[in-house]
Amino acid sequence: MAYDGTNFHGFQVQVGQRTVQGTLEEALAQVTQESCRVVGAGRTDAGVHARGQVIAFHTHWRHSWEELERALNAVLPPDVVVSQVEPAPADFHPRYSARSREYRYTIYNHPLRSPFYRYFAYHVAEPLDVATMARASDCLVGRHDFATFGQPPQGENTVREVLWVLWVQEGPLVHFDIAANAFLYRMVRSIVGTLLLVGRGRLSPEEFREILEAADRSRAGPTVPPQGLCLMRVNY
Amino acid sequence: MAYDGTNFHGFQVQVGQRTVQGTLEEALAQVTQESCRVVGAGRTDAGVHARGQVIAFHTHWRHSWEELERALNAVLPPDVVVSQVEPAPADFHPRYSARSREYRYTIYNHPLRSPFYRYFAYHVAEPLDVATMARASDCLVGRHDFATFGQPPQGENTVREVLWVLWVQEGPLVHFDIAANAFLYRMVRSIVGTLLLVGRGRLSPEEFREILEAADRSRAGPTVPPQGLCLMRVNY
Repeated sequence: MAYDGTNFHGFQVQVGQRTVQGTLEEALAQVTQESCRVVGAGRTDAGVHARGQVIAFHTHWRHSWEELERALNAVLPPDVVVSQVEPAPADFHPRYSARSREYRYTIYNHPLRSPFYRYFAYHVAEPLDVATMARASDCLVGRHDFATFGQPPQGENTVREVLWVLWVQEGPLVHFDIAANAFLYRMVRSIVGTLLLVGRGRLSPEEFREILEAADRSRAGPTVPPQGLCLMRVNY
Repeated sequence: MAYDGTNFHGFQVQVGQRTVQGTLEEALAQVTQESCRVVGAGRTDAGVHARGQVIAFHTHWRHSWEELERALNAVLPPDVVVSQVEPAPADFHPRYSARSREYRYTIYNHPLRSPFYRYFAYHVAEPLDVATMARASDCLVGRHDFATFGQPPQGENTVREVLWVLWVQEGPLVHFDIAANAFLYRMVRSIVGTLLLVGRGRLSPEEFREILEAADRSRAGPTVPPQGLCLMRVNY
């Protein structure tokens, strides 16, 4: 499923707030006439988008999955869409069954702010040295203690495995794509905030690597804002 | 200048409504301490966007044009941006001095609606035959009576000269670009609505040409909604 996170207080249900999970549960209740708990693969923050979120729920729906998809999209608001509905094994859990996740962070690197990207990119007016940022980001790949870049959502373990990083430039848009087995809380936004110090010439790629290896949260650069972030895909 | 038209009741000042012109005049008054009338090249409708709108105004500003640009962008809301400020000849008029205008209409052609393009494209779920639409649109180029596709903003003359049309496909997005010396009211949206009948196999390119040649407003297809339209450029 996909959503524009702009007008949601994040994925997870919060009393009195419009959330993605709450919106989905209401739509499912309306369509299936059952009260329904939705579990998502990634608990995105307020303002964060998703193109490839995966959710699971139990239902006694008697018609086809295509009909459930159509019925859900007919009642869901315009900022949420269900891309596909299919049956899953009984032990499937969108979060625990996931092998890896892919996120994209988008920077709008242009002297002037853009009215069109304000909800989908982070505006950086100064020219960025993207080639050096890309060189610095190579050290992220592999199994590391990422304590510099975030807290674990639960437990104490801050070791994660980054599978790959990729930079895509599209005119003034700079996309940073990153895949990992799992992410710490705010990890992508903290990495990008620190890489921006490299892109502005204030840190060298070597210093960036030292900051990663320090495993010290206080050494990260500022966390960049949520609107540039998008959950692109979850792999099982 | 550029704006996201979503939250504006069009370009032109209307009492009690948020308009682009009103927003610009307020920003200019705040920055220059003069009361200021803004004239625009194109009076875009509510929901229509602009990437290359051109405006003119009189001012006694004593500092540089770069400083005026920065000061305006500092007080303008995030959905409007001034791209450049430069002096113009005394007889310059953004509308009457314009030689031609370029508009883009964007269709999101995908079985599912998209949360991301809902304010910037018109969703068409059925597959479109874009090659045949492009062939049909060729007859628009040249000097024609476009009475089928709109009313003149003033006067009676419905003859306009279309300079070129261009189709750009970008994944599920289909962009229809059109340049003309000037446009009738709702002309692009009426042309696109009629071309969609071609794209769905309900009209042939030859029938489209007959509808154009009939110069009869009642023969046009339905006018497509405003959010797919963007004023891209004005040439002088």
